[in-house]
Amino acid sequence: MLRVEAMAIGDELLDGRLSDTNGARLARELGARGVRLRRVSIVPDVLEDIIAALNAAAERSDVIICSGGLGPTDDDRTRQAAAGWLGVGLERSQESLDGIVARFAAVGMKITPNNERQADFPAGARILETVVGTAPGFMCEHPSGMRAFFLPGVPREYDWFLSTHVMPIILPDVDQTLARETIKVFGIGESAAEHALGGLELPEGLVLGYRAHFPEIHLTLTAWGMEGDEGQQLVQSARQMILSRLGRFMIAEGRQTLPERVGLRLKEAGATVSTAESCTGGMMATMMTSVAGSSAWFNEAYVTYSNDAKSRLVGVDPALIEANGAVSRPVVVEMARGAAAAAGASYAIAASGIAGPGGGTPTKPVGTVDVAVHSPQGTYYRPLGMRAYWGRERIRQVTAHHGLALLLKILEGRVGDDPKVVGPLGEGEQ
Amino acid sequence: MLRVEAMAIGDELLDGRLSDTNGARLARELGARGVRLRRVSIVPDVLEDIIAALNAAAERSDVIICSGGLGPTDDDRTRQAAAGWLGVGLERSQESLDGIVARFAAVGMKITPNNERQADFPAGARILETVVGTAPGFMCEHPSGMRAFFLPGVPREYDWFLSTHVMPIILPDVDQTLARETIKVFGIGESAAEHALGGLELPEGLVLGYRAHFPEIHLTLTAWGMEGDEGQQLVQSARQMILSRLGRFMIAEGRQTLPERVGLRLKEAGATVSTAESCTGGMMATMMTSVAGSSAWFNEAYVTYSNDAKSRLVGVDPALIEANGAVSRPVVVEMARGAAAAAGASYAIAASGIAGPGGGTPTKPVGTVDVAVHSPQGTYYRPLGMRAYWGRERIRQVTAHHGLALLLKILEGRVGDDPKVVGPLGEGEQ
Repeated sequence: MLRVEAMAIGDELLDGRLSDTNGARLARELGARGVRLRRVSIVPDVLEDIIAALNAAAERSDVIICSGGLGPTDDDRTRQAAAGWLGVGLERSQESLDGIVARFAAVGMKITPNNERQADFPAGARILETVVGTAPGFMCEHPSGMRAFFLPGVPREYDWFLSTHVMPIILPDVDQTLARETIKVFGIGESAAEHALGGLELPEGLVLGYRAHFPEIHLTLTAWGMEGDEGQQLVQSARQMILSRLGRFMIAEGRQTLPERVGLRLKEAGATVSTAESCTGGMMATMMTSVAGSSAWFNEAYVTYSNDAKSRLVGVDPALIEANGAVSRPVVVEMARGAAAAAGASYAIAASGIAGPGGGTPTKPVGTVDVAVHSPQGTYYRPLGMRAYWGRERIRQVTAHHGLALLLKILEGRVGDDPKVVGPLGEGEQ
Repeated sequence: MLRVEAMAIGDELLDGRLSDTNGARLARELGARGVRLRRVSIVPDVLEDIIAALNAAAERSDVIICSGGLGPTDDDRTRQAAAGWLGVGLERSQESLDGIVARFAAVGMKITPNNERQADFPAGARILETVVGTAPGFMCEHPSGMRAFFLPGVPREYDWFLSTHVMPIILPDVDQTLARETIKVFGIGESAAEHALGGLELPEGLVLGYRAHFPEIHLTLTAWGMEGDEGQQLVQSARQMILSRLGRFMIAEGRQTLPERVGLRLKEAGATVSTAESCTGGMMATMMTSVAGSSAWFNEAYVTYSNDAKSRLVGVDPALIEANGAVSRPVVVEMARGAAAAAGASYAIAASGIAGPGGGTPTKPVGTVDVAVHSPQGTYYRPLGMRAYWGRERIRQVTAHHGLALLLKILEGRVGDDPKVVGPLGEGEQ
């Protein structure tokens, strides 16, 4: 089997500022093609460290894929290290330079002398041109026979180089047309999802991967190197098996996002949605409007942070807040109803809760959040009990996800699958 | 400085099933204590690979912290590898075995022979007992002098071992001489920032790092291992030099975020803020309410996506929209004024633009966005011309950042530094 390893280069990956995700990306891409990565190394922007790591790799691997350190600034040392390792000089490629200048010009920017260095490559390197960023990558062959790829560290650019340049070179014979399906679940943890799928007998040749994509878990089914439709059929049958166990947590599939799926369902129904947000502070509206074309089903929304705003903007009776507190079932139910009425929308999501770090009480600790969705069939309510140690931002993100997931399940007629949902509540019911 | 590296062990980290997060965790923990990790390696559950990696580490580091491969199953090889590396045998610890049996009994489970192996340790190892999982960790000292820690790979357990066992042993008196300052700039690219700082003569011993943290660039000044206040003084003088060149792009310093700095200034002024958001769809309100305690200066905000919402919620004259279009200076200026009036707030930010991918015209292409801030001194306006290829989400994020940055500069009396800002416009001026 082809011996492949990865190296990520950058001080920021070793001092706590940033995490490398490219190693895991490469592992997934290779794993899907039946190749297990042999090693991942993360090294600092130090010439000797990069060279030593390249030399060690040359003793055990056929291919190394390096990322990072190709930027325009002085602390980016990868191109010097590659040249030093190979014992050659750096040469400027006029063609690459022209390309960099053109890409800058296209966005109305002028190139700086620093950027010009991005057209320098070790003598004899194969230049890997880019259309997704400014820096080209390159490939060199070491006297040991190891091929070394040097790619930008930015994940979006790295991904593009992997599929466009690297895979076709290192695995020319592997069927690059994989069968793959992603099931996105929310409201269940990674190990609970794994536990729920325990004993599931997947057909030979299928790989099931778990990936945390906070606050979602993405399950990826991959079949590689199969004839004709066989891979696709296996993936689809496994997908059904997984959905039969975890379907109630499913909030999207494939490349679709949760807000995109919500938007699609609203569009199909000819419906519109609004929000009334306290602890989420506009996050649910932001998610909705992340969808291109959302103006077809989204007109307006309300951030009702203060009690006064809850009354003035979405008509919650101040006495109701006084009696129950702003974080309570009656208040969030009225917020959802009031938002739908004020916006003239068919649906509205409301959220009110204690995101912390302050504001918790013994009966309503930090993480106590109420979510409600008003719909033409009535109003649905769901309490959320989160943990204070998650922190303010995670509590807000999970809350916003619950709001949209609740709306989606109502739109898809599967809200009954969630035992924690109360409703539909009729007019006046709280 | 203590030379520390990390090794994560496990096939599942190299075939795409799981990502290692322990390396990044350790980097953060050490980084906070002024120590930069020297390397992270991820190796498979292969005896020879683990031993080779341990030997290589012993040549360059004082401490290695290994995680994973301590489980009960056959494919977990870490304890054998550690013993093989040290040239000693494995010995069973009766005390550890009793602990494992007791922890299993406490959760009503019976121990299997496989689990008993978790009480085996290389002869002479220091056993690190656990209260958070089943497997104890251990520490060995290699003849080279390197200390090697072997910890479970489960992140929750790994964290616990790090703080309970590892840090107190390797950093008994943490080096306090680290001096660090971060300057966060926005509205300038990474290479333009470096270009602007070209020729800046930083004192010996100071390191200047650039990190893209979209849409901000973070400049980090670090001085290592200096006596007394020397490091702090050097960092502060370099900070002044950088601010003299890039000060107008500075939107926060240190751990503070842009919304936190905006909130602090509002609090100092006893002022409040609201927003009227079209293309950002609530993102600016979400940023504001990300700040703990934001209820002191934030009460409510409006997502005015449709033209009708712009008129009904924040009082923009429909004729003005008809005459100028929703993305225009007069409309965004009125949105800001109207939001402040409707919310009874001292300040209000408004944004209206074409985030794409659809909706562009030859005169107003995708990326055309208008931002305004109403203040007690009048209303300020800033046009933004972004590029369609940035994509919808980036255009929205940059817009939201511009909105908060404009407010910050008004609050700090430095809005005049931005040549693209128009204002203050008096009542009726558009």
